[in-house]
Formats: sequence, structure tokens, C-alpha cells
Amino acid sequence: MTSPSAAPIRIGIVGHGNLGRGVELAITHNPDLRTVGIFTRRDPAAVQPRIAGTPVHRMDDLAARADQVDVLVLCGGSKDDLPLQSPALAARCNIVDSFDTHAHVPEHFAAVDAAARAAGTTALISAGWDPGLFSIQRVMGEALLPDGASYTFWGKGVSQGHSDALRRVPGVAGAVQYTVPVEAAMQQVRSGTRPELTTRQKHTRECFVVLAPGADRETVRQAIVTMPDYFADYETTVRFIGAEELARDHAAMPHGGFVIRSGDTSDAARHVIEYRLQLGSNPEFTASVLVAYARAVYRLHQMGRHGAHTVLDVAPGLLSPRSAEELRRDYL
Amino acid sequence: MTSPSAAPIRIGIVGHGNLGRGVELAITHNPDLRTVGIFTRRDPAAVQPRIAGTPVHRMDDLAARADQVDVLVLCGGSKDDLPLQSPALAARCNIVDSFDTHAHVPEHFAAVDAAARAAGTTALISAGWDPGLFSIQRVMGEALLPDGASYTFWGKGVSQGHSDALRRVPGVAGAVQYTVPVEAAMQQVRSGTRPELTTRQKHTRECFVVLAPGADRETVRQAIVTMPDYFADYETTVRFIGAEELARDHAAMPHGGFVIRSGDTSDAARHVIEYRLQLGSNPEFTASVLVAYARAVYRLHQMGRHGAHTVLDVAPGLLSPRSAEELRRDYL
Repeated sequence: MTSPSAAPIRIGIVGHGNLGRGVELAITHNPDLRTVGIFTRRDPAAVQPRIAGTPVHRMDDLAARADQVDVLVLCGGSKDDLPLQSPALAARCNIVDSFDTHAHVPEHFAAVDAAARAAGTTALISAGWDPGLFSIQRVMGEALLPDGASYTFWGKGVSQGHSDALRRVPGVAGAVQYTVPVEAAMQQVRSGTRPELTTRQKHTRECFVVLAPGADRETVRQAIVTMPDYFADYETTVRFIGAEELARDHAAMPHGGFVIRSGDTSDAARHVIEYRLQLGSNPEFTASVLVAYARAVYRLHQMGRHGAHTVLDVAPGLLSPRSAEELRRDYL
Repeated sequence: MTSPSAAPIRIGIVGHGNLGRGVELAITHNPDLRTVGIFTRRDPAAVQPRIAGTPVHRMDDLAARADQVDVLVLCGGSKDDLPLQSPALAARCNIVDSFDTHAHVPEHFAAVDAAARAAGTTALISAGWDPGLFSIQRVMGEALLPDGASYTFWGKGVSQGHSDALRRVPGVAGAVQYTVPVEAAMQQVRSGTRPELTTRQKHTRECFVVLAPGADRETVRQAIVTMPDYFADYETTVRFIGAEELARDHAAMPHGGFVIRSGDTSDAARHVIEYRLQLGSNPEFTASVLVAYARAVYRLHQMGRHGAHTVLDVAPGLLSPRSAEELRRDYL
């Protein structure tokens, strides 16, 4: 599972939804990485690689091919796939996953850590942007300005959970929901006054809905804006559009957000650290993050650092294909 | 030079200009750190600590007190102090410095590394925000979006070098210069079109000048706006103000800036990562960064990682006083 550092790092992709396709693409932008293949539970013949020529293998073939892979990038879902896949595959290979159920991170970490330590592999869980890059900013912001407050805003971007909720409303034939940060709340936060803001005070919800034949606009609108948990307590707008417009203008999956830390070092000095992501495609960017962390996992493994890690355990320089010397000379 | 992890980390402050005073202040915001004292080349009786009760020692006493210090924070200048002090003190103690002459980082690193390795100490050079936090963003931005372009904007903030240049103009009794990022250039960069921009296309210069008695406004203005290197090629504005206004409104040292990475993962997906600092006091914020990295240096030393490091070698979690477990549970 090691290769000389001059040879490309060999990446296996587990799963081939939007994220797996993004990983295929991301690897093409990184000359020091090479795709070994996609591993799928589907019939390999039914899988269409994003990049022509990417080999597709059955998941069952992974055991036999483990020695051809330096790092596996796991592209399954956090609810059903990763809780089982990550520990099982960490027992065999170095892995990186994008486990994003914040509340269950500790148990997922423990399961992956035990499997990786026993096998002498290196794993990194919860790579991506939140958890991931945003987590780094939350930790660094507090460490750099201990007397302060941190804020996370999401959007503008598509929320899959809220879009799914819209689609379950009777009379809805298709829908997309955008989470939008409230500009006035952001300005308040940037002023450094440390306002107390709930998630709903920080965000509004914009819904684009295609009506089913015969459905009544007002009935559907009311069902949406009064839906508990999802919309009732938010400022929610509903726009009805045609199926063509939905397909044409709302098929992309943009997302992003802000992590803002404001704090004081003395009565006279107030500071604001702001980190912002504007992502044209949530899955493609997340895939790009996974791939950079796959490089770091490979290096951690070479250093003998086994077991589970998170982005908080990874020095920034390990993400770059460049040498530490080059980074000091040209990037510091 | 080690202490049980429950006891506070003992910090020595070398030098007592604005940065050293900021370090005194920053330590008060970090309950896991304690100031052992200020070490000065001046007469200790002439040094006024920022925090009442901070002990002040002669530099010459450092050797005798080295075993009372876990990490020395070096607060001298990059031109004359740190090239000698950092290697000399790394031969005796763990250190962190804010060496900021970008072009000489490799030789400074080599000198400090040799001294620290020989002594079995841990050193971190060039902590601060640029180099420092901005360096992290430049490295991570490129690693996360390899097909892209990076931009650094500085300001709005006081440039000491340009303020000094103003004060050397005949007829100038006092002056402060602000570097201001050009909003239109920033918008261009945020659009993801990857414009080619020079430092002068990205910044304008605002000068606040107090005239000496009898000096002529137009003569002074011309001398400023035509000054080669500093102002001639920039859009420069000069405002004449009174000595009281200069003292009242321009004594603070605000600074900050932006690191922006734009890049594409496919023809359809463009992304922008933006990191912004708005600093009420450049020296106080820089001191706060140095202190967080002093904590990381202490931990690296406990792990047996000797020699020189930069911010690029430090995992984000090491900056926080919280345990890795707590960070995973509450911050990921």
C-alpha cells in the first residue's frame, strides 16, 4: 500500500454518485494522483465514468485489489453507507470519507480509529467544507481571538433536505430550495457587536416549485410556509415555475457560506476574521477537498501515523503537492 | 523546559515594543498560559509592563531563567533583531517569532532549524498574519482548487514603511499612510475571471499629513505623489490635517486584507474561497497569533518534534486549548 514518492498516489473511488463523479474529475487536476478505478455495488457495466477510461470494478473485487490502492476515497452517504463502509474499509486500506452527521462524529471516529489502528492504516473522516474547512475556521478563530464570538452562515445554496421536504408536499411535481443568509444579520456580525442570532434569524428560505397538474397554488403555498421545523419559523418565499425552467436554471448544486469570528484583544481593538465559500457545485468542490485530504492521508501513512484523523489533525502543508521547502520559499 | 499539562504553559516575552505589549495582553485571554516575564535589553526599571505586575528581567538573565520558560515569544524586528536572536535563543529554549521578510525566510529557517535541532528545542518562525494566516490560505487555496488563481489584497491599513517615507519628505511634520484595496479589482477577482493584476492595480494609497511650519502644501503634495517606488505609480491622495487630528484619529494601527482563490472544477462549476481579516490593531492581533502558536510549539515539543517549523507545519487543532476529543465533538 506504499509507493515511491515520485510515482503517483493511487486513488480508489468507492461509490459513484455526484460525489464520486466529482472525485474522478478532481483527480485530473492533480498530476501527482492517479485513479485506480471506481468500486461499485452496482453492475459495473451500468456505471458511466465521468472521465472516459476510468476502470469500474465490483465492490467485491476490492479485497483482491487492495494492494493496488494507496488511498480509498469513500463517496457514500453518511446515513446508510459510511457508518458501515468506513470502519470496514479502514481495516484494509487508507481511507478518507466525508461523514457529515455532526452529532455522530465521535462514535464514527471511534469505530474508524479502532479498525485503522488494528490494521495499521490511516483514515481521515469528515473531510469536506462543513464539517471540514468550516470546522478549521471555527477552531482557529476561537484560538486566535479567545475573547470573541463565532458565527456560521450557510448559502446561498441548495439544501437537499429542504428540497426533499418540498417534494413530499401534495401537489408538488418538482422543487428546489435555496438557503439564503440574511445580509443584515451578517453586517451585524461583521460589526463585532457579537449579536445573539438563531439559525432562523440568520437565514431565509427560497423555494422554486413546479405544480402537479390540477394542484392549487395557494393550497400548496400554505402547506409549505406552515410546515413545522422546515419552513414555519423562517421567512419563506415560494415561486412557482415550469418544469423546463426548473430543469434549466436549478439543476446545478451551488452552495457555500461564511464562518465569521469577531473578537477583541483590548478595549480599543476589535478584529474580524471572515472565511467565505462560494461554490458553483457543492459535490464537485467537496470532491476536490476529499482529494486534497487523500494526499495528506497518504503522507500521514508514510510518516507512520495510523488510526483515525480529522481535518483538525492535518497541517496545511500536507495538502499541497509541493515540498515543504518550496512552500516556505514561495508561499509563506 | 517541560511542565505537566495541567499546569499553565510558561511564556517568556523577548522585547517590549508594541508587539511585546500585545503578547502580554494576549496571554491574559488564555487561562492555560502564564507570563514568566519580559526580557529586555533596556534597563528593566525603565520598562512599563502593559499588565500590572508582569516581571521585567534583563536579557542577560535569560540563560539563568531558561528552565522557568516553556516557550519564548520573540517580539523584535525582522531586520536587525530576529536574524541573530532567533537562532541564538532557539539554542536554549523553544521559541516562536514573527520573522516577516518573505525573501529571507529560507535562510532564517535554516539557521533556526540547525540551532533547534542541535539543542533539541522546537521553534516556529514567521507566525503572524502575513506571513502566517495568509500563507495558510495561499497554500490551502491552491491545493483545494488546483485549476485557479490566488490573490492577496492588503488593507485598509497603516503601512509603516510608507508612513516612514512620508515623514522623510521635507516640510512634513507628521504623517500616516493607509493602503487601501481597490474595490473594483476585488469584485473582478471574486467573479472568478482570474484577471492579471499588479500590486498597484490592487491598491490605492491615502496619506494624512501634518505640515511643518512654513511648508508649502503644493510642494509637499508634489514631492509625495511623485516619489518613486512608494507613490509615483499608485493612485495617491494627500490630505493635510492638524497635529491634534493626527494624534486623535490616526494613532491606532488598523490593518488587514484578503486572500482570494478562485478556481474551476469543471466547465460548469466555478468556486471562490475568500479569507478576510479586519484588524483594529495590527500589533495586538499579530501578538494574539504568536501566542496561539506558542501553545502549538509547546505541544510539538512534547511530541518530540524538534527543529524549525512554520504555520504550514501546524495542525489547526494544536492551536486550541481544547482537547482533540472536545474539538471533534463540538467544533467539527
